[in-house]
Amino acid sequence: MGKNLTSREQDYSKWYNELVVKADLAENSAVRGCMVIKPYGYAIWEKMQTELDRMFKETGHQNAYFPLFVPKSLFEAEEKNAEGFAKECAVVTHYRLKNDEDNKGKLIVDPAAKLEEELVVRPTSEAVIWNTYKNWIQSYRDLPILVNQWANVVRWEMRTRLFLRTSEFLWQEGHTAHATKQEALAETKQMNDIYAEFAENFMATPVIKGAKTENERFAGAEETYCIEALMQDGKALQAGTSHFLGQNFAKAFDVKFATKEGGLEHVWATSWGVSTRLMGALIMTHSDDKGLVLPPKLAPIQVVIVPIYKTDEQLDQISEVANQLVKDLRTKGISVKFDNRDTQKPGWKFAQYELQGVPVRLAIGPKDLEKGTVELARRDTLTKEFVEMNGVVDKISALMEEIQEALFTKAKNYRDEHITEVNSFDEFKEVLKKKGGFIAAHWDGTSETENRIKELTKATIRCVPFDRQEEDGACVLTGNPSKGRVLFAKAY
Amino acid sequence: MGKNLTSREQDYSKWYNELVVKADLAENSAVRGCMVIKPYGYAIWEKMQTELDRMFKETGHQNAYFPLFVPKSLFEAEEKNAEGFAKECAVVTHYRLKNDEDNKGKLIVDPAAKLEEELVVRPTSEAVIWNTYKNWIQSYRDLPILVNQWANVVRWEMRTRLFLRTSEFLWQEGHTAHATKQEALAETKQMNDIYAEFAENFMATPVIKGAKTENERFAGAEETYCIEALMQDGKALQAGTSHFLGQNFAKAFDVKFATKEGGLEHVWATSWGVSTRLMGALIMTHSDDKGLVLPPKLAPIQVVIVPIYKTDEQLDQISEVANQLVKDLRTKGISVKFDNRDTQKPGWKFAQYELQGVPVRLAIGPKDLEKGTVELARRDTLTKEFVEMNGVVDKISALMEEIQEALFTKAKNYRDEHITEVNSFDEFKEVLKKKGGFIAAHWDGTSETENRIKELTKATIRCVPFDRQEEDGACVLTGNPSKGRVLFAKAY
Repeated sequence: MGKNLTSREQDYSKWYNELVVKADLAENSAVRGCMVIKPYGYAIWEKMQTELDRMFKETGHQNAYFPLFVPKSLFEAEEKNAEGFAKECAVVTHYRLKNDEDNKGKLIVDPAAKLEEELVVRPTSEAVIWNTYKNWIQSYRDLPILVNQWANVVRWEMRTRLFLRTSEFLWQEGHTAHATKQEALAETKQMNDIYAEFAENFMATPVIKGAKTENERFAGAEETYCIEALMQDGKALQAGTSHFLGQNFAKAFDVKFATKEGGLEHVWATSWGVSTRLMGALIMTHSDDKGLVLPPKLAPIQVVIVPIYKTDEQLDQISEVANQLVKDLRTKGISVKFDNRDTQKPGWKFAQYELQGVPVRLAIGPKDLEKGTVELARRDTLTKEFVEMNGVVDKISALMEEIQEALFTKAKNYRDEHITEVNSFDEFKEVLKKKGGFIAAHWDGTSETENRIKELTKATIRCVPFDRQEEDGACVLTGNPSKGRVLFAKAY
Repeated sequence: MGKNLTSREQDYSKWYNELVVKADLAENSAVRGCMVIKPYGYAIWEKMQTELDRMFKETGHQNAYFPLFVPKSLFEAEEKNAEGFAKECAVVTHYRLKNDEDNKGKLIVDPAAKLEEELVVRPTSEAVIWNTYKNWIQSYRDLPILVNQWANVVRWEMRTRLFLRTSEFLWQEGHTAHATKQEALAETKQMNDIYAEFAENFMATPVIKGAKTENERFAGAEETYCIEALMQDGKALQAGTSHFLGQNFAKAFDVKFATKEGGLEHVWATSWGVSTRLMGALIMTHSDDKGLVLPPKLAPIQVVIVPIYKTDEQLDQISEVANQLVKDLRTKGISVKFDNRDTQKPGWKFAQYELQGVPVRLAIGPKDLEKGTVELARRDTLTKEFVEMNGVVDKISALMEEIQEALFTKAKNYRDEHITEVNSFDEFKEVLKKKGGFIAAHWDGTSETENRIKELTKATIRCVPFDRQEEDGACVLTGNPSKGRVLFAKAY
C-alpha cells in the first residue's frame, strides 16, 4: 500500500478521499453512493456514539427503535417534509424475487409480489414516529416524550463523498413531544448546545451556534438551529442540527393532548440529529499531509509502542518493558497497542500510525533499555523527543489532555482568523475567493437576496449566530437595512 | 391501562402479545410486520448488546458497517443463499417520488427514476460483505478477518409476531474469513459457545448446543451450529446460530489468498448472529401471569422504591431515607429508581413494576421509618418480607445474584423435565401432544424421514446435540439404524 497522500495544497478533495481510504476509515461499496465503514473508522464512530449517548441519557432521553420503512401515505402526510425528501428517496415496491425462466440462475422481480402501498426507506423518521406518538399521547401526563434512535437512513444523493454525503448514512435522530411551545424551544436549544459541547470537547472542533434562515431550514421545521464548523480549505460544514417543528407534525398526524386545564391541544415537537458526517468534520479539522490527526478523546488507539530490534533476544527484553508499560497505561485508562508484529518493519509501522492518526507513538530500542529512555513522538506536532522511562506514564497521561487542547486551540485560531467582516459586495467576493472561511456580512433578511448571493458566489448563509451583536447596517447586496451580521460561506 | 393479562393457561399466545405491549416492550407499527421497540424494551436490548459486544471484542472481533442494500447481481451470486432469501425480500426499484398530477397533494413513484439494477434490502449480509472482502484479502497476512456488524435486516415474513418473527429486525451478524477449514470451524464453534454463555449467564436461559440437520441449515452454509431454548409452553426456540460457510462465498465472489507456501486458495468463512428474537426468548423463559420477570443482569431497573404516604411531610421524611438508599445502591452498581410521582397511587405502581419485571421492589411508609424497616418484594417468587433498613444494601446486592441463579435453576429444571426419551412413534406423538418439550429420539439420518415426521407431527429436529451419547438404536419412524438420539420439538 502506498502511504503517500496527495497534499492538501495540490488537491484538497483528492487528499481527503485518499486519506479516508488509506487510513482504513471507509471505502466505496458496490452499491451506488453507499459506503463501507471499516473497523478503524467504525471504532471512532463508536467512541462518538458512546459520548453522545451518555449526554442524551444524562438529559433524560431514552433510546427506542422505529421501522425502516415509511408507507407512502404516512410519508406524504406532512406536506413540506414530504416535498423536501420525495426527490431523493429509495422506494420499495415488491417483496419477492423469482427465477427468471428465460435466464437460468438469474433472479427477477416477481410482478405478482407488488406491494399494495409503496414503502419509502426512511430518509428521516418524523412521519413514522409521529404516527406512533399519536397512540402514546392522550394527556399532559404522557408528556414530554424524550426519545432518541440510532439508525441508518437513506437519501438518494446524486453526488456522494465518503462520510460527507452518502446515500445511506448512520445517525441518531431525537424526536421529542412537549406540552408547550416554550418547552419545545428550550429542548431544541438544549440539544444544539449538547452538539456544540460534543464537537468542541471531544472532536476538538470549534463550532458556531446559530439559527438557519428559512431557505436552509429542515423541511417541515419552524426553526432549525445548527452548529457550523470550518474546514481547512475554508469551507463550512454543518455538523449538527436541532429543529423546532412547532405543531406541524402533530397537526399532520392529529396528535392532541388533554391539558391540565381540561382543554385539548396539539403537541409541540422537536427533532435533532448528527450523523457519520461528523467523521468528515473530524478528519478535515485536524488532519495533515501525513494523514489523520485524531484528538485523544476519540482515538481508538491513543498510544502505540513500536519495538526496534534486530535479534529475538532484544525483542524479548523490549517486550518485557513494553508489556509493563501497556499495563500501566491501561490502568490510567489509556488505550494502548504494542505492535510487535514481525511481518512489518518499524519504518512501515511509523508511517502507518501516522497515517491513522494515533496521538502518541513510543519507540523502544536496545539503547533505550540501557539508558532507561523511550522515544516519544507526538502526531499533532510531528515532534520527537527522548524521555525518561521513569515517569513516562504520567507524562503521557498529561499529554493526552495537552494534545486535546492543542488541537482545539489550533483549530479555533484558524477558524477565528477566517471570520471576516465585509461591508461591500466586492469585498465579499474577494474574501470568498482569496481567503474563504466565514464572511460576516449584513443581509436584508429576504430569501430573494440570499438566493441571489448564492447564485452569484455559491456562498450560502450558514447561520444567524446566536451571539451576534445587534448592529444597524446595510445589506451587502441590496443596501437595504439590516439589524446584524450573518455568516456566509461556501459549504460542504 | 388495564394491567390484567390473559393467563398463560387460557391462551399462551395472547398472554405473550399482551405482555409485550402492556409491559412497554414493543408494539406493532403502521408498517406491515414491522415493530416499534419501545424505550423500556430497547433498554433491555441495549443491555444485551453491551454484553455481547464485550464478548465479541474480547475474542478479537471488531465492528464495521456495510450497506443496507444488496444489488441483485451480488444477491444472486451464491446460489443457495439467494434461493433461500429470494422469496421473502424487500426490493427497491425506484429512487424518487413525484407529485401525482391527477391527485393533488399525493405522491406517486416516478417512473423516470427506475433503478438500472434493483436493490435488495439485506436479509443477511454475506453477499455484500464477501464482495468487499474480495478487495481486503490478498495474502495469508490479511487473515483472519474478524468482523461484526450491528444492523437491521428485512425478511418479508407473512405471519409475524412481536420480537419472534418480524419483517424488520435488529441483530448482529459476524462475518469472518480464515486461511484454513480448521480455523473457520473453531471460530464457528467459539461463537456458538459465546451465545450459549450469554444465554445462560445473562438471560438465565438454559440452552442446548448442537448442529442443525441439512434441512434446517442456513442457506449457503455447510454446517449450522445453534443454541436451542425451551419456552414455557413446551415449544423450542432457536436463540442463536453460527454457520460454517466452507468456501462457498469465497468461490461465489472469487476470494483467494496467497498462502505462506506460495499457493493460491479460496478463503474459508463463518457467519453468526443473534437478533431481537432473544427478547422473545427472554420473555417466554421467565415471565408469569402477572407480567414480565427479568433476570437482574438484564433489568434496566433492578430495584424500585415506592413511598407510601399520606402527607407531604411523610413524603419528605421517606424521601430522605430513600434518596440515601438510592445513592448507596448506585455505589454498589445497582440501578435503582425512586418513584415519587404523586400522579399514581402505590397500588398502581406495584402492579406496573410487577408487569415490567423489576426484580426487587422496596416500599417505605411512615411505620417503616419508625421501626427502621423496609418492605422488600421479590418479583420472581412474588414474596414479600420486612427487612432491617440497616444492611438492606448488602442484602439486595446478594439478592441480585440469588435471583439471577434462581431464575436459571428454575428454567433449567423445567427444561430438563421436558426432555423425554421415546422409543416408538406412538410414544413420540403422545409425548408431543401431552407434554411437549424436547423429544430425544433415534432418527435414521435422512431428510426424507425428517420431513415425514414434520408433516405428521409439526415437530422438527432442533439439533443434534454436541454432547449426545453414541448409542445404537432404531429410527423412531422407519426403524432404520441410528447412532444416537437427536432432539425433536415444535418450535417458534
